[in-house]
Amino acid sequence: MTASGGGQDGAAPGMVVAVQRDGRRDEVAVEEPLEIRIDGAPLAVTMRTPGHDEELALGFLYGEGLIDGPREAGLTADLAHNVIEVQGPLLRDPGARRFYTTSSCGVCGKGALEQVSVHAPRATAGPIVDRGLLASLPDHLRQPMFERTGGLHATGLYNAIGELSLVREDVGRHNAMDKVIGRALLDRRLPLAASILCVSGRLAFELVQKAAVAGAPILVGVGAPTSLAIELAADRGMTLGGFARRGRVNIYTGAERVH
Amino acid sequence: MTASGGGQDGAAPGMVVAVQRDGRRDEVAVEEPLEIRIDGAPLAVTMRTPGHDEELALGFLYGEGLIDGPREAGLTADLAHNVIEVQGPLLRDPGARRFYTTSSCGVCGKGALEQVSVHAPRATAGPIVDRGLLASLPDHLRQPMFERTGGLHATGLYNAIGELSLVREDVGRHNAMDKVIGRALLDRRLPLAASILCVSGRLAFELVQKAAVAGAPILVGVGAPTSLAIELAADRGMTLGGFARRGRVNIYTGAERVH
Repeated sequence: MTASGGGQDGAAPGMVVAVQRDGRRDEVAVEEPLEIRIDGAPLAVTMRTPGHDEELALGFLYGEGLIDGPREAGLTADLAHNVIEVQGPLLRDPGARRFYTTSSCGVCGKGALEQVSVHAPRATAGPIVDRGLLASLPDHLRQPMFERTGGLHATGLYNAIGELSLVREDVGRHNAMDKVIGRALLDRRLPLAASILCVSGRLAFELVQKAAVAGAPILVGVGAPTSLAIELAADRGMTLGGFARRGRVNIYTGAERVH
Repeated sequence: MTASGGGQDGAAPGMVVAVQRDGRRDEVAVEEPLEIRIDGAPLAVTMRTPGHDEELALGFLYGEGLIDGPREAGLTADLAHNVIEVQGPLLRDPGARRFYTTSSCGVCGKGALEQVSVHAPRATAGPIVDRGLLASLPDHLRQPMFERTGGLHATGLYNAIGELSLVREDVGRHNAMDKVIGRALLDRRLPLAASILCVSGRLAFELVQKAAVAGAPILVGVGAPTSLAIELAADRGMTLGGFARRGRVNIYTGAERVH
């Protein structure tokens, strides 16, 4: 594999492209499909911004509970064709998680959370942090690519005193999270038991789930949380903060970590 | 089926739920899975805000090129279990579209657009509209549920003089679009050859594709377009406007419809 750069090197060639609009030159975020294959068999496709694609594939597979290690040896990229190959075997049958792939009575008697959630450990005690620190995390999140296009989501990984150690951008918010988790996996930093994750947008179920599987005790977003995001964060003992902007943040779950 | 109300009746019970945060009562947008089944077999699941679920299922299937009519007779909803059943047969094998479900060499030699796009007609000539009108469309889009939660995306359907005839909200931007198209399908308004669609967020590939399949010649968004969104809009002869806010709009493709 060609490992993409770690650290704060969020930009990559091909993330932004020039277009014409209203007769002048403008820049927009690149969106292309990426196919993830296991032993040659297509598993998933995601519409993503090129760059850090190995991280994306690994983070996606980790978040789905399909791998538990970086698997560098088995990674090959054919990015001219937008394909990442990962060597199996996987930890479980990828078709077995979500209820739509199980038998047609798979949902009976189950709550929504049980229907769609991946196994994730309960969050560790984790750090106790200042509310103002959580509110300020998005200030570090805006990256050059976003500034140029206005079209990219970002996820940042911070330590307990709010220092940003890693940031990734993508047209898909779930991809930005997958890339951060994939990088952390490659760097043997999982589980993220002493870390804080911050996202540039809204907090839907899927993002909380990815953070939960990665073991992050605290997740903060600039936007609103959904009901199921809050339900999952509460269930896993995570701290979930939303509307982090202008020096404020709303704490929905896990307020015991915030003072 | 229980047809959901048309017109501007965007709100539905269960779209918003009360939560506790920071020791006080707050409201958030509801997010729950919806499984779409064809003749009892699971086809897809989407994380959506409950309400107008039949529209969502029909709009989704139409956008995927799987149905071409409303199929009310074959629709049954089991919303206690978050399931919508649609009677087959479908227009084509649902597994055949996206390259990840085809053979592992399905992408060789194809461009990204060809890899993932559904067949959509070229846009009709459509209306010629004022730039200021396009810029003002989002003003009508903010709905009660968004105001209460800050967590919902919206899609609106407008006529050529900017009158809003239908709006739908959802935690998923693609769901809001599917609900509008599903409602239009039920009301026999497809193709949307004389209409304008406007979305509250960014313009990614998938949204342009849904609009293209529905035959809408003009799509405007409050946020940034992606490269593939612009490529598809150009390919289908659509007018694509982004960053529609504060009285301005950027026109990326199809400027001949804007004066």
